Amino acid sequence: MDNFNFKSTTRIIFGKDMEKSVGKHVLKYSKKILLHYGGEYLKELGILDRIIDSLQESNIDYVILNGVVPNPRLSLVRKGVEICKKENIDFVLAVGGGSAIDSAKAIALGAMYDGDVWDFYNGKATPQSALKVGTVLTIPGSGSEMSESSIITNEEENLKCGIDIDLIVPEFSVLNPEMCYTIPDYLMSCGIADILSHLLERYFTTTENSILSDYLLEGAMKAVLEVGPLLKKDPKNYDYCAEIMWLATVAHNGMLDAGRTSDWASHRIEHEISALYDITHGAGMAIVFPAWMKYVQNQNIDRFMQLSIRVFGVDKELDKNYIVQEGIKKFEEFLISLGLKIKLSEAGVPIDKFEEMAQKALNGSQTLGRFKKLNKDDIIEILKLAI
Amino acid sequence: MDNFNFKSTTRIIFGKDMEKSVGKHVLKYSKKILLHYGGEYLKELGILDRIIDSLQESNIDYVILNGVVPNPRLSLVRKGVEICKKENIDFVLAVGGGSAIDSAKAIALGAMYDGDVWDFYNGKATPQSALKVGTVLTIPGSGSEMSESSIITNEEENLKCGIDIDLIVPEFSVLNPEMCYTIPDYLMSCGIADILSHLLERYFTTTENSILSDYLLEGAMKAVLEVGPLLKKDPKNYDYCAEIMWLATVAHNGMLDAGRTSDWASHRIEHEISALYDITHGAGMAIVFPAWMKYVQNQNIDRFMQLSIRVFGVDKELDKNYIVQEGIKKFEEFLISLGLKIKLSEAGVPIDKFEEMAQKALNGSQTLGRFKKLNKDDIIEILKLAI
Repeated sequence: MDNFNFKSTTRIIFGKDMEKSVGKHVLKYSKKILLHYGGEYLKELGILDRIIDSLQESNIDYVILNGVVPNPRLSLVRKGVEICKKENIDFVLAVGGGSAIDSAKAIALGAMYDGDVWDFYNGKATPQSALKVGTVLTIPGSGSEMSESSIITNEEENLKCGIDIDLIVPEFSVLNPEMCYTIPDYLMSCGIADILSHLLERYFTTTENSILSDYLLEGAMKAVLEVGPLLKKDPKNYDYCAEIMWLATVAHNGMLDAGRTSDWASHRIEHEISALYDITHGAGMAIVFPAWMKYVQNQNIDRFMQLSIRVFGVDKELDKNYIVQEGIKKFEEFLISLGLKIKLSEAGVPIDKFEEMAQKALNGSQTLGRFKKLNKDDIIEILKLAI
Repeated sequence: MDNFNFKSTTRIIFGKDMEKSVGKHVLKYSKKILLHYGGEYLKELGILDRIIDSLQESNIDYVILNGVVPNPRLSLVRKGVEICKKENIDFVLAVGGGSAIDSAKAIALGAMYDGDVWDFYNGKATPQSALKVGTVLTIPGSGSEMSESSIITNEEENLKCGIDIDLIVPEFSVLNPEMCYTIPDYLMSCGIADILSHLLERYFTTTENSILSDYLLEGAMKAVLEVGPLLKKDPKNYDYCAEIMWLATVAHNGMLDAGRTSDWASHRIEHEISALYDITHGAGMAIVFPAWMKYVQNQNIDRFMQLSIRVFGVDKELDKNYIVQEGIKKFEEFLISLGLKIKLSEAGVPIDKFEEMAQKALNGSQTLGRFKKLNKDDIIEILKLAI
């Protein structure tokens, strides 16, 4: 097991109607906040009214900044930063999925910085402080509600960059499974693919002797495989919604994989696809991950075998190579069963910019990923496998 | 899934030699601490010197209070409280296993209270504040290094009582797996039994629809069953020590079982055994838990079947009742393979005070436990099954 330093500071407030008490939780930090969200559907669904009522009950002032879109944009972040500075706001409350939360985190960083917030995302500067962030999660998948990550799209430069820093771990996150009832079927599928991809990135480790974390990650993956289809058939089942919401959080909060390396090459490659073609991140992961698996499988065939046998239930008595292929096949079948595409061509993504994507994914480094260190040619080969 | 509110605030500093940096971590909280530990073996092993060197490097004043024993005593806690008050100490650093940590937590509570600290343990008063606590873990098992629990023995009254409150969750815990190298074989076995018992208490839930938490708890149990024998054969293997140390923490920090009820009747029954006969808690759990299982199995036979099949690898095609018995048998065999006794008689515990134990375990309530609500007669029957 590798050395590690783990702290998870987010308070999770989980259950029905919990957003009605959000004001009480905000009040521990602030009297004046930025209320940050995406589409007007939150208003139509009444979610926003419940939150605003709760803020008002606690006498909390709020300034609204809406309009967050998937692959959240730098321009809106800059606008949020400006508002926070001008209005002396010291807390950002995100309402939404990963996009709203990542955008809120970026605003929280920018508001305490004299330069341009993008400096933190392109590595020019390191944040020293941030406003506090809280979240009301409405779409599970990203895990951003309990993570130290924020990923922002610089739409002028067609760049999608991320930062990982504990300054932006949310103070609290409100998880009401009922929020899942109104998530469009396709977006829920994307969320499920995203959860699975977060677990797989951690599963493909270079750390030897990872008995406990293997079992925990495998358990979480089995839960995804079991809950996913149940939820698709019965999308307003509270218990299935609760499982998927908590799964998304647990998959990405750092507890299951403490003490082991993880990979993340697939995520970085996907970011270049969604930066250029603005597809939903989870949909992109469903395309990149199987291709990555096919390309890197010989790096550590035992690990792929373990995944196939323990998670996808492939018979361990079969031929080694067959076991691995069968595991990857079952993974693809699961993604297809969710209604997702597993090929770039099917998803309408052009295939003429692999060189540019690979270059950008490397972002100045020689290689990408840890399980197998990928160079530019490797990345292009993976993209070709995804055609 | 049940509603829940989860926050885990302990920073885990995990790896070789990490105790050498403990001063740096303490310094974030205090310049003058109580250094609290048990036996002089910590001095002989050089562990204490490394910690004191680190405290001195950070110019931290310390007052030593040693002498913690298993089933930590109220009298020593009171002494610690007195020292903290007199010396204006604002931080307690525990070095040891669950006993030292639980004792440190009790001191931290008492030092901020004008009355007698036992008031918090017998339910007469509720703590409003506490000193901060940090730990250097030397014996895994209790999970106290990341938990909100403290259990203290009132030796004058032969009572063992506990408190659960987030005020006493440690600020940080230093986990160096190398500390395990010198743990006596028997104590390590007790620790392993304790870890398994913490997972089982959570496994026997009344919450329906617990897909993810079932898989996580089962995964952790499988890791115990796999690592336990490896570690017994090769007690100075760093990786096995690392697995068991992190397992102990994860088993008891509240993450794996968020959103489900747990039982805890077996723990409460065991506390009365160790309160009267001063046996090691883990050794007591190895006796009580199989007996509890035999007594309550018909309460939810499906849950017992799931445990047998998924954790103990019993063939699911066999007869229902056989599957359950086989699972319990495999659990007992595992405990015996660790060198533990699974019967009161074998452990030298007299069997003439069942009535008193049952009464004290109930502690004024009508019933004990959640999976099956046990009355006094039930508890006596369980103790009889453990003879």
